[in-house]
Amino acid sequence: MDGFVVGGERFGSRLILGTGGAANLDVLERAIKASGTELVTVALRRINAQKASDGLLDVVARTGVRLLPNTAGCRTAVEAVKLAHLAREAFGTAWIKLEVIGDERTLLPDGVELVPAAERLVADGFTVLPYTNDDPILARRLADAGCAAVMPAGSPIGSGLGIGNPHHIRLLRQAVSVPVILDAGVGTASDAALAMELGCDAVLLASAVTRAEDPERMATAMRLAVEAGYLAAHAGRIPRRFHALASTPDEGRPDL
Amino acid sequence: MDGFVVGGERFGSRLILGTGGAANLDVLERAIKASGTELVTVALRRINAQKASDGLLDVVARTGVRLLPNTAGCRTAVEAVKLAHLAREAFGTAWIKLEVIGDERTLLPDGVELVPAAERLVADGFTVLPYTNDDPILARRLADAGCAAVMPAGSPIGSGLGIGNPHHIRLLRQAVSVPVILDAGVGTASDAALAMELGCDAVLLASAVTRAEDPERMATAMRLAVEAGYLAAHAGRIPRRFHALASTPDEGRPDL
Amino acid sequence: MDGFVVGGERFGSRLILGTGGAANLDVLERAIKASGTELVTVALRRINAQKASDGLLDVVARTGVRLLPNTAGCRTAVEAVKLAHLAREAFGTAWIKLEVIGDERTLLPDGVELVPAAERLVADGFTVLPYTNDDPILARRLADAGCAAVMPAGSPIGSGLGIGNPHHIRLLRQAVSVPVILDAGVGTASDAALAMELGCDAVLLASAVTRAEDPERMATAMRLAVEAGYLAAHAGRIPRRFHALASTPDEGRPDL
Amino acid sequence: MDGFVVGGERFGSRLILGTGGAANLDVLERAIKASGTELVTVALRRINAQKASDGLLDVVARTGVRLLPNTAGCRTAVEAVKLAHLAREAFGTAWIKLEVIGDERTLLPDGVELVPAAERLVADGFTVLPYTNDDPILARRLADAGCAAVMPAGSPIGSGLGIGNPHHIRLLRQAVSVPVILDAGVGTASDAALAMELGCDAVLLASAVTRAEDPERMATAMRLAVEAGYLAAHAGRIPRRFHALASTPDEGRPDL
Repeated sequence: MDGFVVGGERFGSRLILGTGGAANLDVLERAIKASGTELVTVALRRINAQKASDGLLDVVARTGVRLLPNTAGCRTAVEAVKLAHLAREAFGTAWIKLEVIGDERTLLPDGVELVPAAERLVADGFTVLPYTNDDPILARRLADAGCAAVMPAGSPIGSGLGIGNPHHIRLLRQAVSVPVILDAGVGTASDAALAMELGCDAVLLASAVTRAEDPERMATAMRLAVEAGYLAAHAGRIPRRFHALASTPDEGRPDL
Repeated sequence: MDGFVVGGERFGSRLILGTGGAANLDVLERAIKASGTELVTVALRRINAQKASDGLLDVVARTGVRLLPNTAGCRTAVEAVKLAHLAREAFGTAWIKLEVIGDERTLLPDGVELVPAAERLVADGFTVLPYTNDDPILARRLADAGCAAVMPAGSPIGSGLGIGNPHHIRLLRQAVSVPVILDAGVGTASDAALAMELGCDAVLLASAVTRAEDPERMATAMRLAVEAGYLAAHAGRIPRRFHALASTPDEGRPDL
Repeated sequence: MDGFVVGGERFGSRLILGTGGAANLDVLERAIKASGTELVTVALRRINAQKASDGLLDVVARTGVRLLPNTAGCRTAVEAVKLAHLAREAFGTAWIKLEVIGDERTLLPDGVELVPAAERLVADGFTVLPYTNDDPILARRLADAGCAAVMPAGSPIGSGLGIGNPHHIRLLRQAVSVPVILDAGVGTASDAALAMELGCDAVLLASAVTRAEDPERMATAMRLAVEAGYLAAHAGRIPRRFHALASTPDEGRPDL
Repeated sequence: MDGFVVGGERFGSRLILGTGGAANLDVLERAIKASGTELVTVALRRINAQKASDGLLDVVARTGVRLLPNTAGCRTAVEAVKLAHLAREAFGTAWIKLEVIGDERTLLPDGVELVPAAERLVADGFTVLPYTNDDPILARRLADAGCAAVMPAGSPIGSGLGIGNPHHIRLLRQAVSVPVILDAGVGTASDAALAMELGCDAVLLASAVTRAEDPERMATAMRLAVEAGYLAAHAGRIPRRFHALASTPDEGRPDL
């Protein structure tokens, strides 16, 4: 599996890991390693960016992954833009996973706030990766605003419901030319494989790994599933048929 | 992934490959290698068992996989039993994938013929792996008859429709203690991963690989997908939730 | 909606109601009336066929519906044949809903017992309506045995899971020329409508109505749903499209 | 089925019919009558509002239904607001189905344009019913803007794909207190019934009826399906169970 390019950077792995939800940093570190990821998201508020010895940053440094700060918890464009600037200072990166949440129950993104926030952050020099819904129209607006990728939810964050509307992910994939990263809703390996088969360039997940009973094992599963889905998407799958098609022709069969 | 045991033999790979449908033997050989399989099915009528130089047997010998002859194309128990005996002589193995087809359009198994055929072959000393439908009642009858495994169809052979009724695969898994091998219907990697997540012990597929545009690549995808699904099934996935669950708690967030 | 013919009898309603599960006979009577059904199933063991004043038979008499005795609870062909004969004597009808259950947890039918039981009952002059699974091969065997209809389960009895495998119901519909009656698994109105759209001739349900909070209201819903599904199945539905198709053409639009 | 109230008006029917796509006005008139609808949508550009004798308006007058003009084909808020004002003048009604389309291929709504258009039209005294996507966050914004209802797409207009994401329709239903009207994507009767079971107050459809082979029959089917779904939604359906639940208890069964 050749890597994918987003924001001008090439990544060997098409799996992006969120760092929230892990029982402790040791579990997280092993999950990061097992997943093979090269990019992890991190919330500004969960670490003390001032302290050089902060544990999460140590894990990041040791594993050699790149940091993608997010604006988790923001409810308005203004909040998200402020938090993005704080994160840029704290982490020394202009990459930002832009989240503007519309609702505490669903944690679904608020498209109306998302677009101006994205426009502003692009203008401010950020590499913007917005968490969006599965709406192809909104995705194209975000791509047109200069976002480096679009990251549609498969289903609500932490729900483990997988991809609620595969048809919309396909439509969204057709609507933009920037990378599409499925973000949120993945519960198990087949969900991640399906995301890739639908044409996504990468998968971002957190709870599915960090809250699994065995995070390291699930991280390995997700690494393999993303590779499997990517390969299958590019191997020319057989068409779906209403009836059967024998794999074994009848000729040459012995008389019985 | 530790291997699985069927018929007293341990296999390191949980993927079983059918050999029908490949463009030529070279393609097949590369697909077998890429898949990592250790067990391939073969129809008696497609090879000339008398000729030591038969190409398919050479491939089998070179790749070191074990042979599982099948009774593809049989319509009655009597036919299938006869063919199984011919296959045992021809291939020198008492393993048999028992197929008794009820219908040319769907190639679905005929349970009424299957049970007496299985009973007879077990009595005749065969290690019997019957291709069955997703009916838990029939599966238990086959297990009770002494079959070494049961192999339910996900959907019709060659249809690529995936697993038509995941609920039945779960019920079937609960109904028997012998290995369950999903057989037929797999179209892409996520189908194979899902089969394992539903509790299957292995996946058997042919057309999905041999008729893909790039069989070798799809074989790799299937190898990874089966491993991913197996690991995910044993990593304690997160529960499904109607609403969201934040991966990032709110505490410690900077004031904005 | 014109009626349907089974066993030489014409029924104006395509909904068949099971009588098990109702809180009391008054609830049942109102549900029967609201459903518009003309055929209800009844288990021999739930009524005292000797007592002329048995409540359920009174309800049947008052509502004017036809009785379809069943062999619920039987586990073998022998049991089912015996019970069918008792039912014929007790109820004075040669119609029998043939049930041979393979498993207490799933209550799914045992095809291997079903076929000889059906053959025997047909030979004994019964009008046989077997409860079967969604296997088209088994359905054709039952039709070939002389059954007056086949009654595939949508999902396990009382599960309310709807139609687990719509593809199999379509395949089964193509496999036989006798009426197909979806039996078991219906939970709500859309399930019943879907059954008819898949080509079924009628729907049999019990728990969905008798165990609903408001059985009379649900009975009305089911009556309408079966009619709706039947009409839709014969109205030539629009094809499914990946993209949109405007209902409003662009010509004649005012300049804005 | 008691009626539903939207914009201060009570409607006896919960089915709303679009008038686009019919072969001719006679077909449309019969479909309107068969559907039982009391509210039909109409595009300004498809009729000549100046001519008192316009055929479509005659149909509307004869059938006694209420008119809901739409802004079909608009791509921006500015266009839609202009067209709404033209429609108010032309049809003498302040009701408007607000459509702002983001894309010709999917005809999905553009949420970013929709919100300011809705705000403006509400301020201008319109009763606004916006065609939106299945996003609960956007739906709440529209409700907060003063819209009289929200009308989420089940799937793209004219696609006949049904409800692509039932989970989102449920979440959307929880997110707003105004009526929810499923709009777009319905292909057959079970889709309409499902919409009501998911909690929608009404269903709007056009192509499913006007482009069916037999529009009048399909209109009848949709009328019944909407009623069936509404009743089922309020009858307390049985819970879904993984295993079976016998409708017939075992006690009292004859010894066999």
